[in-house]
Amino acid sequence: MTTDFQATKDKFHLPAGMIYLDGNSLGPLPKAAAARVNQTVANEWGDMLITSWNKAGWMAQPTALADRVGALIGAEPGHTVLGDTLSIKVYQALAAAIDLTPMRKVILSDTGNFPTDLYMAEGLIKSLDRGHQLKTVAPDDIIDALDDTVGVLMLTQVDYRTGRMHDMQALTKAAHAKGIITIWDLAHSAGAIPVNLQGCNADFAIGCTYKYLNGGPGAPAFIYVAPKHINSTQPALSGWLGHAAPFAFDMTYAPGTGIERMRVGTPPVLQMAALDAAMDVWDAVDMQDVRDQCFAFSEILISEITTRCPDLQLASPRDGALRGSQVSFSHPEGYAIVQALIAQGVVGDFRAPNIIRFGITPLYLTQSDITRAADILCDIMANRTWDQPQFKVKSAVT
Amino acid sequence: MTTDFQATKDKFHLPAGMIYLDGNSLGPLPKAAAARVNQTVANEWGDMLITSWNKAGWMAQPTALADRVGALIGAEPGHTVLGDTLSIKVYQALAAAIDLTPMRKVILSDTGNFPTDLYMAEGLIKSLDRGHQLKTVAPDDIIDALDDTVGVLMLTQVDYRTGRMHDMQALTKAAHAKGIITIWDLAHSAGAIPVNLQGCNADFAIGCTYKYLNGGPGAPAFIYVAPKHINSTQPALSGWLGHAAPFAFDMTYAPGTGIERMRVGTPPVLQMAALDAAMDVWDAVDMQDVRDQCFAFSEILISEITTRCPDLQLASPRDGALRGSQVSFSHPEGYAIVQALIAQGVVGDFRAPNIIRFGITPLYLTQSDITRAADILCDIMANRTWDQPQFKVKSAVT
Repeated sequence: MTTDFQATKDKFHLPAGMIYLDGNSLGPLPKAAAARVNQTVANEWGDMLITSWNKAGWMAQPTALADRVGALIGAEPGHTVLGDTLSIKVYQALAAAIDLTPMRKVILSDTGNFPTDLYMAEGLIKSLDRGHQLKTVAPDDIIDALDDTVGVLMLTQVDYRTGRMHDMQALTKAAHAKGIITIWDLAHSAGAIPVNLQGCNADFAIGCTYKYLNGGPGAPAFIYVAPKHINSTQPALSGWLGHAAPFAFDMTYAPGTGIERMRVGTPPVLQMAALDAAMDVWDAVDMQDVRDQCFAFSEILISEITTRCPDLQLASPRDGALRGSQVSFSHPEGYAIVQALIAQGVVGDFRAPNIIRFGITPLYLTQSDITRAADILCDIMANRTWDQPQFKVKSAVT
Repeated sequence: MTTDFQATKDKFHLPAGMIYLDGNSLGPLPKAAAARVNQTVANEWGDMLITSWNKAGWMAQPTALADRVGALIGAEPGHTVLGDTLSIKVYQALAAAIDLTPMRKVILSDTGNFPTDLYMAEGLIKSLDRGHQLKTVAPDDIIDALDDTVGVLMLTQVDYRTGRMHDMQALTKAAHAKGIITIWDLAHSAGAIPVNLQGCNADFAIGCTYKYLNGGPGAPAFIYVAPKHINSTQPALSGWLGHAAPFAFDMTYAPGTGIERMRVGTPPVLQMAALDAAMDVWDAVDMQDVRDQCFAFSEILISEITTRCPDLQLASPRDGALRGSQVSFSHPEGYAIVQALIAQGVVGDFRAPNIIRFGITPLYLTQSDITRAADILCDIMANRTWDQPQFKVKSAVT
């Protein structure tokens, strides 16, 4: 192991006493981010104003910073760009993929995909009005559903509820054998597990940067387009910053060079600053070390809970090779259990209808955090601490 | 006049000695924004983490803060929402407007529109592939081009190059008389001039918040949908945060209530914090006062320059009633002239091919700023100071 996890832990701010197992929803604050954002606000915006588009690198950041994300997911340099939200990136990728397989009308996904991916596909299909169909099958039935009616296979690699992980390489290969284009949503992969887009011969990938990459609330999304496709990709969302010459202000659109064409509008400069600080943490991190440490921690958590808390059902695969970087349990009172945990400083989250999720993030968690979280959870279950009215009041965002 | 412009000026940070005439590109830093953003980073993200979605109001902010923008443009409360970029909002508005007039195939715009509006329309038309046509006419020819082939009239109210302002009320009325839906891009209107969407019976409006509203680089865009249309609007970009129940994680999309459906993905929380601080400045501002002061300042600038600098041609309408909040001049060496001005602390900007732009923003400019800027510009013209090699090197972003 080459990664110094004590050193990475020291780079994050976490409230005293909190065990934060929700990095799969929102990564914690890298200590350097506050100063970096303040510098962007006070010096770049405040003092340098519009000159910062060039002098502070604001205009180049969506590609420059994207390459640092790309390095963690095995992307070729110059083939990833940051911007917008993951929903928008789904739309861009799917519109481009459909264009590459115009005669095939089925977009295949699975029931474990994150809903916004399916919703965006629905919206695009409706707009296109060319007889496309979004077909969702169970995760295990994907291989059998790959046939010559399918144009695009659109999957989230790691299931947001259960952490179940698809074999990206095998599925991409099987899809390609049938002439199908693939889109991989890496929302729960980037910064969580080793990903090798080049090695998988991936076509399109998308993801967000506020979960395992710790880019902050509302951090920009990313999109990757393989070199073999980028020059034939005609952006559906043809915004001015994806134009070949944005500042020529031509009246008609011409796509920019390479991945630049997947830019749309003005980048979120303050969010980029926070993400930039967050990416610094990754410079000294080996993704395989993260994976190994996550595996070890997850085994401890699963072992403790399955042994000591019989009422909690493991919702994640038992085999660590089939899991991403989260461990989930199911319980009919999952919501209240999560609230009771939070009240004792253990922050996980709940996903309807009955899933208790824990992100296992070695960058800022220790083994003693994991065993302590297990103890607290077992205590809550044994004493039915969750069975109190204050833990059952649902918030707008759960 | 009820607005205390000295008080508003005190609320902005501007570098010592700088006369900032580029608020039409990027508004300067409201002093309160740095602390506000830092609070969001350190306290909300750092200490409160995911609970901030509820407790710090992150989830509600795209509508709550949008209503503060809406109040400046005469929108009904609850009919504006923030998010994404202006390009994305153009796409959303146009897709919705096309749906309302399915049998009419012409989208009418003008040659003064900002290119990204036209580019996004191009992309949408190509995706739809239903025979729509983007027709652009000269600004003065719009009325004559309104016929029953036109489904949507999509215009930017104030021309980004010249400041020429359309009569929103008259054009909307003329469009409606022909059964045409209107989309108004308020990028150079919101915070610049009084706008009354309700009074104009507007259908859709969009805009950005980093120019006259001073929301910071990459601040979110906004979209307004009139009450008469919102419930029949089916979002083309049907993201999960526009869903009726985002946290139910249903497999199929159902549009949210009212304007909520025009949300797409996770809001840019740090950008929202900066914009929130910027909007505080507007609480004590009367838009008509801004308009009056802008008119007075613009008259001084135009009078000085046209009298003393015969080489500079006024590119804006001479009649202040026909201008927005900027004054532009044309010159073949406009780029070099702007660089020479910036070197002397007067920040305007250049727009291809030959436009020198000055944003006239009374919130932080004084009459003496305007006369001093005029003196410096006239001096540069008289001495041909601009005719030096260092002023002719073009940056990536101009």
